[in-house]
Amino acid sequence: MTEPATDVVPTEDPRPDGLRTVPSLVLVHTGNGKGKSTAAFGTMLRAVARGWRVAVVQFIKSGEWKVGEQEVAERLGVDWYTLGDGFTWDSADLDHDKGVASDAWATAKSLLLSGDYRLVVLDELTYPMTWGWIDTADVVATIGARPERTNVIVTGRDAPSALVELADTVTEMVEVKHAYQQGIAAKKGIDY
Amino acid sequence: MTEPATDVVPTEDPRPDGLRTVPSLVLVHTGNGKGKSTAAFGTMLRAVARGWRVAVVQFIKSGEWKVGEQEVAERLGVDWYTLGDGFTWDSADLDHDKGVASDAWATAKSLLLSGDYRLVVLDELTYPMTWGWIDTADVVATIGARPERTNVIVTGRDAPSALVELADTVTEMVEVKHAYQQGIAAKKGIDY
Repeated sequence: MTEPATDVVPTEDPRPDGLRTVPSLVLVHTGNGKGKSTAAFGTMLRAVARGWRVAVVQFIKSGEWKVGEQEVAERLGVDWYTLGDGFTWDSADLDHDKGVASDAWATAKSLLLSGDYRLVVLDELTYPMTWGWIDTADVVATIGARPERTNVIVTGRDAPSALVELADTVTEMVEVKHAYQQGIAAKKGIDY
Repeated sequence: MTEPATDVVPTEDPRPDGLRTVPSLVLVHTGNGKGKSTAAFGTMLRAVARGWRVAVVQFIKSGEWKVGEQEVAERLGVDWYTLGDGFTWDSADLDHDKGVASDAWATAKSLLLSGDYRLVVLDELTYPMTWGWIDTADVVATIGARPERTNVIVTGRDAPSALVELADTVTEMVEVKHAYQQGIAAKKGIDY
């Protein structure tokens, strides 16, 4: 034999031959484990390598988190929008914060519908959907109506069922074991 | 209120304060879902952003897969080793293939123990361990004996329990839904 038998040869994406191609995909990364955003940024890297134009919208203010990713992504030509770009959560007014979420979604919607991007990453979009600050039906309808070559990745816990239904691929990241359970702090360079 | 109550504010890494820091971490990405390698490459991006020296060793010959990641990673200064670098699986001889795996592990071991890298990604290392081509006890002992500031990420299905035991953080990627189940082929720019 030249390689192990096919049934034990793993690949990261073991699809049979003879499948149809589609112009774009919708991916959802959900669950309580690590890696939801990180895998989206890994895919961003792949898209950049293919020469695609990519946009990222961060729906949760991350402070120091993701600053590194943003810096490298921008170095690679990715358009990166954070809640810091014109909207912040630091008002004393819940209505303001809902407005911030709406503004972020309006930005994302225009990026999604522009046709300018082959990949749009909607990072942690599920949270404002869960809180009712962004209308899930509008998100699902917008993603469903996107230009045909615009791929979409949505990350965050508790992905709404309508979004799961729409998505082509849904992965749940499950926390088997986590450093903080052993009293270990988050680590710069690894966790942020 | 300025933000939603703490118990509903999500972050990707919601650790309590007062935890100890450690010089390095061992992360394992396992499970049958997508995103194991992709999340490792996302973390690689973060490490690069922090100015870390990073090495990646691919233990499974990927063909067209991961070529894009490799290209961008090398553009960012990452040292990337594939089975194509001096060893391939395309012999007609199983013993040869076991030797290839051994050579790849020897390369990885020297990178791990060199102290030159703040992050070493051992991509799809679990498979040759599962097949018995690389000694799991040696892998676990080597990772355990690494220089204290060398972080390690191991990816692949069926992570051996001794590796899970050693790891600080283990995430299982679970396939909830996958495009190929709807007859959709892998997509360049997203899947590879």
